[in-house]
Amino acid sequence: DVAKDVDEDFVEKFMSTVDNIQIQENLRELTKVPHMATTAGDEETVNLMLKRWQDPSTGLDQAWREEYLVHLSFPDPKNPNKVTVVSPSDTVLHTAREKEKPYTSDQDDPEVVQPYAAYSPPGHPKGKLVYANQGKPSDYRKLNETMDLRGTIAITRYGGAGRAAKAINAAPYGVIGVLVYTEPLDINDGLMSDVNETYPHSWYLPPSGVERGSFNTHYGDMRTPYLAAKDETYRIPVEDITGIPPIPIQPIGFEDAYILICALGGEAAPSVWQGAFNCTYNFGGPGFRNTSAFNNSDVRLDIFNNNVLKNSSNVMGIIRGSVEPDRYVIYGNHRDSWVHGAIDPSSGTSVMLEITRVLGQMVKQGLWRPRRSIIFGSWGAEEFGLIGSAEYTEQYFAKLSERTIAYINVDIAVFANATLRASGMPSVQNVIFKATKQVKAAGLDTSVYDNWIQYFNRTSPAHGIIPRVGYLTGAGSDYAAFVHYLGITSMDISYTYDRSKTNARIYPAYHTAYDTFDYASKFIDPGFVSHQAIARTAGNVLIRLADSLVLPLNCSDYAESLEDYLKTAVQLYQDKLQTQKISMEPLKRAVANFRSAATHLDQVILTSDLVNETPMKTRRINDQLMLLDRAFLDPLAFPDKYAYRHVIWASSSAGRQTFPGLADAYANAELTGQPRDWDKVHYHLSVLSQAIEGAANTLVDVI
Amino acid sequence: DVAKDVDEDFVEKFMSTVDNIQIQENLRELTKVPHMATTAGDEETVNLMLKRWQDPSTGLDQAWREEYLVHLSFPDPKNPNKVTVVSPSDTVLHTAREKEKPYTSDQDDPEVVQPYAAYSPPGHPKGKLVYANQGKPSDYRKLNETMDLRGTIAITRYGGAGRAAKAINAAPYGVIGVLVYTEPLDINDGLMSDVNETYPHSWYLPPSGVERGSFNTHYGDMRTPYLAAKDETYRIPVEDITGIPPIPIQPIGFEDAYILICALGGEAAPSVWQGAFNCTYNFGGPGFRNTSAFNNSDVRLDIFNNNVLKNSSNVMGIIRGSVEPDRYVIYGNHRDSWVHGAIDPSSGTSVMLEITRVLGQMVKQGLWRPRRSIIFGSWGAEEFGLIGSAEYTEQYFAKLSERTIAYINVDIAVFANATLRASGMPSVQNVIFKATKQVKAAGLDTSVYDNWIQYFNRTSPAHGIIPRVGYLTGAGSDYAAFVHYLGITSMDISYTYDRSKTNARIYPAYHTAYDTFDYASKFIDPGFVSHQAIARTAGNVLIRLADSLVLPLNCSDYAESLEDYLKTAVQLYQDKLQTQKISMEPLKRAVANFRSAATHLDQVILTSDLVNETPMKTRRINDQLMLLDRAFLDPLAFPDKYAYRHVIWASSSAGRQTFPGLADAYANAELTGQPRDWDKVHYHLSVLSQAIEGAANTLVDVI
Ligand SMILES: [Ca+2]
Ligand SMILES: [Ca+2]
Ligand SMILES: [Zn+2]
Ligand SMILES: [Zn+2]
Ligand SMILES: [Zn+2]
Ligand SMILES: [Zn+2]
Repeated sequence: DVAKDVDEDFVEKFMSTVDNIQIQENLRELTKVPHMATTAGDEETVNLMLKRWQDPSTGLDQAWREEYLVHLSFPDPKNPNKVTVVSPSDTVLHTAREKEKPYTSDQDDPEVVQPYAAYSPPGHPKGKLVYANQGKPSDYRKLNETMDLRGTIAITRYGGAGRAAKAINAAPYGVIGVLVYTEPLDINDGLMSDVNETYPHSWYLPPSGVERGSFNTHYGDMRTPYLAAKDETYRIPVEDITGIPPIPIQPIGFEDAYILICALGGEAAPSVWQGAFNCTYNFGGPGFRNTSAFNNSDVRLDIFNNNVLKNSSNVMGIIRGSVEPDRYVIYGNHRDSWVHGAIDPSSGTSVMLEITRVLGQMVKQGLWRPRRSIIFGSWGAEEFGLIGSAEYTEQYFAKLSERTIAYINVDIAVFANATLRASGMPSVQNVIFKATKQVKAAGLDTSVYDNWIQYFNRTSPAHGIIPRVGYLTGAGSDYAAFVHYLGITSMDISYTYDRSKTNARIYPAYHTAYDTFDYASKFIDPGFVSHQAIARTAGNVLIRLADSLVLPLNCSDYAESLEDYLKTAVQLYQDKLQTQKISMEPLKRAVANFRSAATHLDQVILTSDLVNETPMKTRRINDQLMLLDRAFLDPLAFPDKYAYRHVIWASSSAGRQTFPGLADAYANAELTGQPRDWDKVHYHLSVLSQAIEGAANTLVDVI
Repeated sequence: DVAKDVDEDFVEKFMSTVDNIQIQENLRELTKVPHMATTAGDEETVNLMLKRWQDPSTGLDQAWREEYLVHLSFPDPKNPNKVTVVSPSDTVLHTAREKEKPYTSDQDDPEVVQPYAAYSPPGHPKGKLVYANQGKPSDYRKLNETMDLRGTIAITRYGGAGRAAKAINAAPYGVIGVLVYTEPLDINDGLMSDVNETYPHSWYLPPSGVERGSFNTHYGDMRTPYLAAKDETYRIPVEDITGIPPIPIQPIGFEDAYILICALGGEAAPSVWQGAFNCTYNFGGPGFRNTSAFNNSDVRLDIFNNNVLKNSSNVMGIIRGSVEPDRYVIYGNHRDSWVHGAIDPSSGTSVMLEITRVLGQMVKQGLWRPRRSIIFGSWGAEEFGLIGSAEYTEQYFAKLSERTIAYINVDIAVFANATLRASGMPSVQNVIFKATKQVKAAGLDTSVYDNWIQYFNRTSPAHGIIPRVGYLTGAGSDYAAFVHYLGITSMDISYTYDRSKTNARIYPAYHTAYDTFDYASKFIDPGFVSHQAIARTAGNVLIRLADSLVLPLNCSDYAESLEDYLKTAVQLYQDKLQTQKISMEPLKRAVANFRSAATHLDQVILTSDLVNETPMKTRRINDQLMLLDRAFLDPLAFPDKYAYRHVIWASSSAGRQTFPGLADAYANAELTGQPRDWDKVHYHLSVLSQAIEGAANTLVDVI
């Protein structure tokens, strides 16, 4: 039926069918072995996904795999990377642990990849150790004021800067190698002992735990920018790749970091650089204290990482839409992990499999078919830089931009079991609210919504106090290509911490060998009830996007965010811009026009009797809503940011809650004072104003 | 009615109502005074368009003006540009005519702008004259082999290279000024005498006639790339403008060119450089023959052109669609001329006004309302570089890309009265055929189609012998921004020459003061019957695009063109590419996939009973057809070509009838032999294959 709206009974039925034990068993199966991208374990998960999605009674309409030949980086199993302390006479005084200490048998699996920094170049730098805090530009600048950094090895802690940045920022100072470790203050609320404090006694990271990761700054396969990485696709030479470490870098556990840092000489680092170790964190002499066992010794890195082109698979599955098969709601998560990946990403995959089981069953039984098509994506090689999802968007760019209603990303479904966390374009706020009001909070009598609003909230001019939905301004998971490259309305949903209970930067086992079923089921979500709440919430949103007669995307909420950004921009920039004879009026007019256009479209929706009017009217309004984010794309707005085209949500380094390109251009102009840089501010203001005006133009009367 | 198809009776009625005398009177009114962009005469035409389109009984639903503040270049009325021959003692031996000789009173209007090269820098170069043929790179290279060009003034003839290119190509050799004239051999079939041969005795150009023009290589307002030129829009500094003459250049008539060229010294130029003058065209000594009156003299240019920001108006008018108001068929032409512009552009504007009169009347009388919306655009400042249409597409980028079915351009409606000429994307061939079969050829008993096929034809694998529809690969009129920037299916329609009767490069009065009502009505289209045939043809196509249930755009004809391009590419490039280990297989696969997808979609259309199926299905198919050209866009494919994004139809300098980016990359790699240039060929092959695959993906089953 062309005019059928979402069926609330069906939504109810879906939610009551979503089963926590099914999710638990999904997770158990997904995490049997490590499944790093393109390994045999990954292949097992490919087959698992295919088996489930092709199941005759609970599968989807169709499921298949799509492969991309992508540029990956692995350590050499025969030549493990090494970090050693070497005396002047070349005696090895200390060797960092090569693999994490196993507490369970799965952690002892030979397939557990040695901790490493993917895309670090191989090399054998040896030099005096220095401590560089988080490896931010300001950290190296500060450090460089106290000593000559040429020829040194810098030890940094995770956080504050991107992984690759810690090496990229170091190289200009002559640093020749970098170590990175997880500081217990940042991850363990200061706890450090595996005798009684850390996993398996709690969720905290054991001393030998090491965060692996991809050390790059762009997303997607590095050798095929803007092109899907098919076998015969042109690949840029490896030496032309940018955004990766120019010098070797290796992650280590805090067990080893402790030994290195507490032996450092030189002056005491500033208090904000101090961590939880029971010693003063010194800058380094450079090098170790002469009262230490490592007096006059060097730190040496032996890095044997190899680049390799390997086939990585996305697994795709679809449920065909009945009325508008050419409209897609996409739901995705990556499948690959660093090790067992119980939380990252298998918590999300377990949830996805439960959603597809319930919906697939309804479809197979003929009880339901969505109005619009649903595409499920199990992305490959996310951990190496969101590769599977990025290649997918490159390959299907035209089709996806023309037809995609929204993208829902559930990667780590449950960071912790306290509250929902959601981020997305402002237009998705309303449908998330609707869903969360219908879902019971895990282990509580209240709704997810009522629980959520206690943890994250804000005062909206239109709605009063409401939960705060964040923005997707970065490239933290597979939503990046959808948001920034395709301009598709997207959201990212998870359960997360009670921040009054922990300061952990992320769940402590993140990207370590301890992210296992045992860990997840004991310390993250016993009973899998938070997983269940996420499955119900994300599934509820998915059904609404697929089945609602009028798309549940609210453009007036978008206007509110633009107004908020504008207010901040005017406060921060207007006075100075006036002295530069740059007017903010076009931006103000654009935001005002967007607001009135949004109000108008809301009125059209409100006053239309769409069930009885021509279906073309519904489609027209839905096209306006679907394509709204596309109107904010400008492929030339950010020439220095790979595949960032959305002028409102692009990443920004200025650290201001406002339009990213404007904030960055302003910060730069203020720094240099150059007229040409003020011109760039003016230029970006025009780009931004035109994009917002253009978006407003799509919301007013269609002709 | 949601399922209503085009009404053939209405089409008939439209065609029979289109009146040649109305067109004639439109032209008379439009050409009363010169209407160069932004002048008082231009403003009169703005008001005329508004009056017609707002007429209560024959107007459109709505009409309005839209202004852009754009960068124009004019001569100084108080300091006319001068071209003189100056003796060594500074005596002026000859002064080129400042204005064309009037034969009628309108040609004597003080508002007739002096012939000039828009965007030529001002300056006063003086030097020895040389003859540089058409000012192509090869011409200057040749000339430079015979002498040192530093400090010379080059005289060139129109044709062979773009206007600006004649100066841009010259400057690297040290040439300091350029003249350009219209060679009688190229424009007048060699005739030169105004006593009995040229206008007012025939359509041929009088000796003092000068082709004006915009001397630039990019289109759109030069100071606001990719941004609509609103008052507060950021403008690049004038000195950052590229693609314009770096040295002064001025056009002159052949009356003066004769005096200069026939006095040149040096060796005889090659035979292909020779023209119709009764003298040998020499290279120049440099400078004049010492046996001539100009012995040892210089040629001096005094150019006083000024750049100025002025408001230029588009006039927009709409007829609201009944069923799908959010689908646009756009019909446009520029309004501005260089002088009276009877043929260019007012022949097209007269036709457009007759189409809007007939359709407007039907709408006002309640007899008709199109299924889709129709937008009429009367563009400003086209002559300066397609400015009005380009700014329009920049301002409304999102809305237009999302919703536009097609763009129809009728600029010069009638170059000559022999036959139709049509260019466009291959998908429009069929609807043009349909229309032309229904229109009677001007002054003949056959249809426009049957007449056309005698002048331009080709053998199609699918259709046999059919009229040849050209491609829109350049930026010759306002379709450029629609084709290349927006990727909108477009066409350009006119009546043109019998090439067996004339070799004229274009109608001889083009861009001169002789392009008047008198000229048009006597020598181009007496009785305005060719104008009428164009109005009927273009209007017929317009109605079909607006009213057909299934869009009359044929994707299988697109496949045929791609196959043709592929065949040529394989013939030309495959062997050499194999030696470079670059495979053409992905391109072959892409074209084959496009073909089978097109066949499939055609089958879907053929086997659907769309009148009785859900309207969503019709819309879905139509969306596939509408958006097909959008799928070929890649904003990064041609980084050196401003606003060229369509990978199939971009301009190319390689002169091959195949994919433009591939042809250019191949030509360059063959020239340099550099591995990096072969990489670029491989890169572009991937870009191209991916675009064609992406387009094919939009034509197959939607899910
Ligand atoms: Ca790629
Ligand atoms: Ca512009
Ligand atoms: Zn993840
Ligand atoms: Zn991860
Ligand atoms: Zn024209
Ligand atoms: Zn023209």
